[in-house]
Amino acid sequence: MLPYTLIEKKQAGKTLTRKEWEFFISGYLSEDIPAYQMSAMLMAIYFRGLEDEEVSNLIDIVIQSGKRIHFKHKDVFYADKHSTGGVGDKISLILAPLAAASGRVRVPMISGRALGHSGGTLDKLESIPGLRTNLTLKEFQEQTDRIGCALIGQTNDICPADRELYALRDVTATVRSIPLICISILSKKIAEGIQGLVLDVKSGNGAFMQTKKDAETLASKLKHFGEAGGLKVTPVITDMNQPLGQAVGNWLEVRESLDVLHGGGPQDVRDLSIRLTEEMILLAEPKADRKVIHAELASLLDNGKAFDKFLEIVKAQDGDISVLEDPESYPEPDYVAEVTADEAGTVQSIDTYGLGLDAIDLGAGRRKNTDTIDPKAGMLVHVNIGDNISPGDPVITLFSDNEKALKNKVKEIGERVKLN
Amino acid sequence: MLPYTLIEKKQAGKTLTRKEWEFFISGYLSEDIPAYQMSAMLMAIYFRGLEDEEVSNLIDIVIQSGKRIHFKHKDVFYADKHSTGGVGDKISLILAPLAAASGRVRVPMISGRALGHSGGTLDKLESIPGLRTNLTLKEFQEQTDRIGCALIGQTNDICPADRELYALRDVTATVRSIPLICISILSKKIAEGIQGLVLDVKSGNGAFMQTKKDAETLASKLKHFGEAGGLKVTPVITDMNQPLGQAVGNWLEVRESLDVLHGGGPQDVRDLSIRLTEEMILLAEPKADRKVIHAELASLLDNGKAFDKFLEIVKAQDGDISVLEDPESYPEPDYVAEVTADEAGTVQSIDTYGLGLDAIDLGAGRRKNTDTIDPKAGMLVHVNIGDNISPGDPVITLFSDNEKALKNKVKEIGERVKLN
Repeated sequence: MLPYTLIEKKQAGKTLTRKEWEFFISGYLSEDIPAYQMSAMLMAIYFRGLEDEEVSNLIDIVIQSGKRIHFKHKDVFYADKHSTGGVGDKISLILAPLAAASGRVRVPMISGRALGHSGGTLDKLESIPGLRTNLTLKEFQEQTDRIGCALIGQTNDICPADRELYALRDVTATVRSIPLICISILSKKIAEGIQGLVLDVKSGNGAFMQTKKDAETLASKLKHFGEAGGLKVTPVITDMNQPLGQAVGNWLEVRESLDVLHGGGPQDVRDLSIRLTEEMILLAEPKADRKVIHAELASLLDNGKAFDKFLEIVKAQDGDISVLEDPESYPEPDYVAEVTADEAGTVQSIDTYGLGLDAIDLGAGRRKNTDTIDPKAGMLVHVNIGDNISPGDPVITLFSDNEKALKNKVKEIGERVKLN
Repeated sequence: MLPYTLIEKKQAGKTLTRKEWEFFISGYLSEDIPAYQMSAMLMAIYFRGLEDEEVSNLIDIVIQSGKRIHFKHKDVFYADKHSTGGVGDKISLILAPLAAASGRVRVPMISGRALGHSGGTLDKLESIPGLRTNLTLKEFQEQTDRIGCALIGQTNDICPADRELYALRDVTATVRSIPLICISILSKKIAEGIQGLVLDVKSGNGAFMQTKKDAETLASKLKHFGEAGGLKVTPVITDMNQPLGQAVGNWLEVRESLDVLHGGGPQDVRDLSIRLTEEMILLAEPKADRKVIHAELASLLDNGKAFDKFLEIVKAQDGDISVLEDPESYPEPDYVAEVTADEAGTVQSIDTYGLGLDAIDLGAGRRKNTDTIDPKAGMLVHVNIGDNISPGDPVITLFSDNEKALKNKVKEIGERVKLN
């Protein structure tokens, strides 16, 4: 078996056997197959796709490259939610404690970092001082069973093959491939030991899948392969033609999540958090009454129990809960600038992808792997599509320690919002 | 400018500017752009192609990565022939001395090594003991002007970018791309300082272009870009559905070439050698009478003058001409096996690509860059398509120092020849 002939086979649109994929993936991990052959293979997959059988085999091969968690309690339903990524998507910060507070499911959540223009739950969590996201798998399991939820980052133990492949896809323009996305998401989720998975598949100009059709294809493939891997799966396609909520940037998003966990916050964030948590509970209890669950979740936000659960989780992971109890005590960014409307009009569209990149330039994300994130940096987007605005109305407020970046953005950021 | 965004641009089928290609190629040569990004780009080019403007820019960028030869004599026509590669293609070994012997053109020929299933002129030349193919550019020019021909391998001075790119394409299944083939061939040929180029574009199951249509496309593109680069170009499409001549393997092919240079040898090899040399001379002298040139070239083979020129070239490059004068003195392979026909029939087809791979397994080529070639290894294919054969007739004779490889081949090689 030669790596070359396997690349050629995929390039010709043929189906590789399980043994061939095992050879290719294990060869890459052992460095017998160099990165330049793997990247050629990834680009061939980008253009030719993978057959269903290949995706299932690859999910399994990637899981077997590491450990697989097995929770001890057979009578408990373990579930997770995954979003395909967007701008201002802080739902996990609310959903995880909310679901745990319900006592109906337990949430062992492994999250990722910011990716391209899209934020990452892990970076948001790490804006909380002291919070450890690198629990051992044993700590992760114990905490999930003790308090209903644990929030960690990818570890070397779980799907190391995905970690290596992902890093390579990220620099070779091969992220946007439906079969590769399925393999990456589902291998990690299956290895996490869960039984149920809610998928928030974003669609729109701030999502990786920009068209509804692509989002639907991805959703249906994720459901198919997730179920083939033994999970109960509910995919939900949601809009990403404007940021979710107002806040974009790590601490800003945590702060907005606190508002929602206190029963307030932007309506779209509250609604989607409840909706996805509801779907998660319905996976665990298919016969439950959706309306009852919905009301219960709303009250867990309104009565502060979801907030308390969040504090419990953060505390369990050594995070400083004082900044969550008193957000005003969090350090302020050096520079703040408010961009206002020049003219009157109705908001027609928002360049959500562009805003995601703007947030990176302000310090909220990474252009290169070696960049460090400023947790205070980011923006509040005060307008939604369909809003009528008048001259002088606030449109976007920018936050950064980088005066030059902020000044540059002030000049151009108005272009992201189109009026008619 | 980010390598990532340029890969993404080509992936989307867009046209890169000259500045963008300069950035990408120079970044790769300086190792600022890693091989895995270049291989992703090459695979994207494989699927998306290149616009004509990009091919012309890239030919120029690759030439400018190294030196360009300028011959001193303005009244002399310098010409070369290039074959897209096949099995048993030893035409260069005959054409180069034959053209030089005519005195009508001078042939500064830079040849390549074996590639995939296909042999390389350089490896064939190096089966002659002592022969130096690494002349300096100065020696190369001087010898071409002194005796009408010099035969060398690629040097670091000429198109270093092509060398790097080629090595990467060879291991990432991106050789078979018409625009990349055009860039690779023409950059080197233009840098060689020639005025005329005859292209032998192979078509068939032993060629890189397996269909007539692909071969015609490649031929017409090579002519177009060669002429854009200032060359006179004649492409000739020739059959590669069976090996050329009988011999496949380095010394075996030199030996068969000696037969042709003595006025004998297989008719197909003699005919094609004369035909391509004729085209080369007609590039230099467009008004010459083709029939006169043809007769002249035939007589240069028959009267030994082409053979003498070959000896002169080999001697000038420190090769041991005694083995050319007395081929029987060349070392014999340790093992020889003749495969004969089991049944009677007419030869319908020959798996030429498969025979090329078989020759590698016998020791005539490389599976990996680090493999060494056994110059004695290879085969004689005694049958042609359309031949009527009887049980017991010799079909293929195998030569190798590797007893195990030879025994394995004996078992299976009969399958390469299909009878009806």
